Amino acid sequence: MSGRTTRRRVLKVTLPESPEKSAGAAYRADLLATEEPLGIRVDGEALTMTMRTPGDDIDLAAGFLVGEAIVRGPDDVKEIKLCDGASCRHEHHENHDDIGNIADITLAGGVSVSTEHARRSFMTTSACGVCGKTSIDDICVLPQAPLAQDTTTFCAAAIAGFPGKLRAAQKVFASTGGLHAAGLFRPDGELVIVREDVGRHNAVDKLVGHALLNGMLPLAGHALMVSGRASFELVQKAVLAGIPMLTAVSAPSSLAADLADESGLTLVGFLRGASMNVYTHDQRVAF
Amino acid sequence: MSGRTTRRRVLKVTLPESPEKSAGAAYRADLLATEEPLGIRVDGEALTMTMRTPGDDIDLAAGFLVGEAIVRGPDDVKEIKLCDGASCRHEHHENHDDIGNIADITLAGGVSVSTEHARRSFMTTSACGVCGKTSIDDICVLPQAPLAQDTTTFCAAAIAGFPGKLRAAQKVFASTGGLHAAGLFRPDGELVIVREDVGRHNAVDKLVGHALLNGMLPLAGHALMVSGRASFELVQKAVLAGIPMLTAVSAPSSLAADLADESGLTLVGFLRGASMNVYTHDQRVAF
Repeated sequence: MSGRTTRRRVLKVTLPESPEKSAGAAYRADLLATEEPLGIRVDGEALTMTMRTPGDDIDLAAGFLVGEAIVRGPDDVKEIKLCDGASCRHEHHENHDDIGNIADITLAGGVSVSTEHARRSFMTTSACGVCGKTSIDDICVLPQAPLAQDTTTFCAAAIAGFPGKLRAAQKVFASTGGLHAAGLFRPDGELVIVREDVGRHNAVDKLVGHALLNGMLPLAGHALMVSGRASFELVQKAVLAGIPMLTAVSAPSSLAADLADESGLTLVGFLRGASMNVYTHDQRVAF
Repeated sequence: MSGRTTRRRVLKVTLPESPEKSAGAAYRADLLATEEPLGIRVDGEALTMTMRTPGDDIDLAAGFLVGEAIVRGPDDVKEIKLCDGASCRHEHHENHDDIGNIADITLAGGVSVSTEHARRSFMTTSACGVCGKTSIDDICVLPQAPLAQDTTTFCAAAIAGFPGKLRAAQKVFASTGGLHAAGLFRPDGELVIVREDVGRHNAVDKLVGHALLNGMLPLAGHALMVSGRASFELVQKAVLAGIPMLTAVSAPSSLAADLADESGLTLVGFLRGASMNVYTHDQRVAF
């Protein structure tokens, strides 16, 4: 188990106020919120997995049980412990990364996960593509990194224009203030596809699905912009669609940056106004 | 299937700039982003369910398949259709609400959902508590509405102070800018518990789990504040923990407001500065 924050090197880009000046770009250290999987086991059975920030993991497991109406009071739970190397080795979790990343719950006598619950194999996650995956090894569905050969570059000034264009295209957001959006951009800054949804992941799925059904996959040479934060799972969706750049209004998680790094994806966060942070593969950002 | 937005009546509250003046409160019509379940069936088997905004549902189903690495090109999909009353009746989906809320996918020959995929019974959702639930009827785990008897009232001025207190208590957010938070407040405005996570749902689970393990459930007489938006599933978590009021910085979804209404929960959205919208059970907001 890691800490709640993870340190990474980031290229901080600041665009000039007037076109005559050149953009500023400098590497600096940045702290990301840690994102790691927590497996939840009940009475010896893997029940679910959630992508979470480490800390308060026993509370998290207990609260999950309340939210699924499995327990109603403290007497319904006999014990919750976090597995470490000594107390909790089993066949699928023998690597060291898993130590402290499994909450092992023993329910009190007479309390159980119903067959209905087990059948649903529900999950709790902030990264919805990992839903229902019951072993930490199951999370990543990525094939070999397919993006390394994509030599597309995007002008920093064009990237800085993405958020404004995305917001302008959000029809439902304008009337409700309550929707996430995903936009697909070309290097010249043109918005090609935009989709909205209450869920960020659904907005991306709608965009990628449109591309699939119209013969546009893989989406090499494009950038994906999402409202909100960049999670592990959005990185995974971008890579599987063949998109070489993911940009987000807010922060990426540590695992999002790790996966982007390994997959050859350029990850841009805090894309607001005239500044942005480039977390990985900054060779695709041109000045 | 409904439209992308849903109209509701809301009590718009505006606090005075000086204490001598009285607060303004008036009912008006408001548009909420629609949130409804979409079941995804592949080759006749219920695979997953996602809470989404209706529209582009065939794209959504197609993109989901790409994001799970089940299909790679348009030839991998034979047909995707939305079920309606005529073409798609089966035992669990015979009520009218489901019409158009199931995407029925037929994969091309030689393409299939792996046993591994089926075992995982993964899902895509913006409302993570419904993860893995494979029938629309399975979504709601709520017991009888338990909140109707909770007569606690919260002063509008105290509610207006929640966001500032929550932000001030977010230690990890301060260093990363990348975390959601959940805070539990008393009617006098005191912040009792605060938890942070990359996932809003995890932050709430950590808070409720702490309460469970410390004998504090049900959390009658308290208000829960979340960063971001209020989804169906956060309402469900609040109700199961016995919390009579949920407040959010951003918009609720239509289904969140519907469930709050039925459950006796006071739902407050767009809680920013000196104004807020009260969507349901506004008798708990005092002036």
